[in-house]
Amino acid sequence: MALILYELLGADNRRFSPYCWRTRMALAHKGLKAELIPCKFTDKQLFAFSGQDKVPVLKDGDKVVFDSWDIACYLEEAYPDRPSLFGGPIGRAGARFFNEWVPTFSRHLLLTVIKDIFDHAHPDDKDYFRQSREERFGKTLEQLGGESGNHRAGIEAGMAPLRAVLQHQPFFCGSAPAYADYIVFGHFQMTRSISPKRFLEKGDILYDWRHRMLDLFNGLGRSVNAYPE
Amino acid sequence: MALILYELLGADNRRFSPYCWRTRMALAHKGLKAELIPCKFTDKQLFAFSGQDKVPVLKDGDKVVFDSWDIACYLEEAYPDRPSLFGGPIGRAGARFFNEWVPTFSRHLLLTVIKDIFDHAHPDDKDYFRQSREERFGKTLEQLGGESGNHRAGIEAGMAPLRAVLQHQPFFCGSAPAYADYIVFGHFQMTRSISPKRFLEKGDILYDWRHRMLDLFNGLGRSVNAYPE
Repeated sequence: MALILYELLGADNRRFSPYCWRTRMALAHKGLKAELIPCKFTDKQLFAFSGQDKVPVLKDGDKVVFDSWDIACYLEEAYPDRPSLFGGPIGRAGARFFNEWVPTFSRHLLLTVIKDIFDHAHPDDKDYFRQSREERFGKTLEQLGGESGNHRAGIEAGMAPLRAVLQHQPFFCGSAPAYADYIVFGHFQMTRSISPKRFLEKGDILYDWRHRMLDLFNGLGRSVNAYPE
Repeated sequence: MALILYELLGADNRRFSPYCWRTRMALAHKGLKAELIPCKFTDKQLFAFSGQDKVPVLKDGDKVVFDSWDIACYLEEAYPDRPSLFGGPIGRAGARFFNEWVPTFSRHLLLTVIKDIFDHAHPDDKDYFRQSREERFGKTLEQLGGESGNHRAGIEAGMAPLRAVLQHQPFFCGSAPAYADYIVFGHFQMTRSISPKRFLEKGDILYDWRHRMLDLFNGLGRSVNAYPE
């Protein structure tokens, strides 16, 4: 098998990297199977050949690509006869906007569940996760966890235009899902994998979208250890 | 000439409707010329045939279309051999996200300049504008004007992902402008038409983008009465 994906591994086989989910979904969209190499945060030596220290990393024969956006662009160019992730240059440019806009929203999701991520990080990774995240955010994980409710407004603000679009179309990419959907979906896979907190409830148009996303590719998104819906 | 566009008219021939600008740019993108019928807010009888009371309204022979998004979709379908506004279904879906997301940002632009709009509304429209906007926002125009500085953070938050995208591509639609660019551009045409306040300064990647937008179609965006750059 030519394709190998290095992706993040948590405790109990959980997969909570939103960026790795983008790539998993993009590969499935293209109908490509990759050998998965689950890596802990502290397993960086496994993909040191990529010249950087973050997953996802995709190896396609001799070709090495990292960064979820660059991987999506690589797959689109390397496998042009497979279903398109972008639907052409303008669609790709629109997906790029999702790529840049989503962090303004997903940051609030992350900070709401960051203590839950720590709790579900692989035991070998706990010290690394605590140190790197406390340094990044300038607070202890316990402080951040105690403030998790502060992000409700930011999450709602981000969900508002997403919900507005879904009033008109079943997926962010229109009548069928494509890469912009996978960008957003990855972050809900993160929360679902490691947190009992529910961000989407029945009756929410985004809840229905997420269920459609979970159904894709024979339930790929459901195939992992996660909290029940 | 078959195409007629009913668009908003302010004092001194100013054109400050962001939605009418979207349509002006979309028509130019398609290489279509339309007869312009400038209408004051209080000229609603001029386009009452559309069954609603807002511009832009496009008349194409017997066909009547209103709402800037629906007009863009109509033009794309009615003139498929002209340059595409969306670049296909996925690109159209991405533009729809811009359409729904931009108000979270443009609302702050609007509230920053709302008193300036009043000052540049057509004299016949002043009473209408004051009454309708004070009712909508629950404050006097003078109160809203006094609070205009409060929206700086909202404007910066909206500009952040726009700037991030432009690090990678010259237009929101990629290497060339298309409808998502016109969506954003319309709001900067609004502020430029009626306010001396500057939102974009030299050295800002968005400033450069706006200049590229102003250059399009033989300087269509510059062809109107506006405050100097």
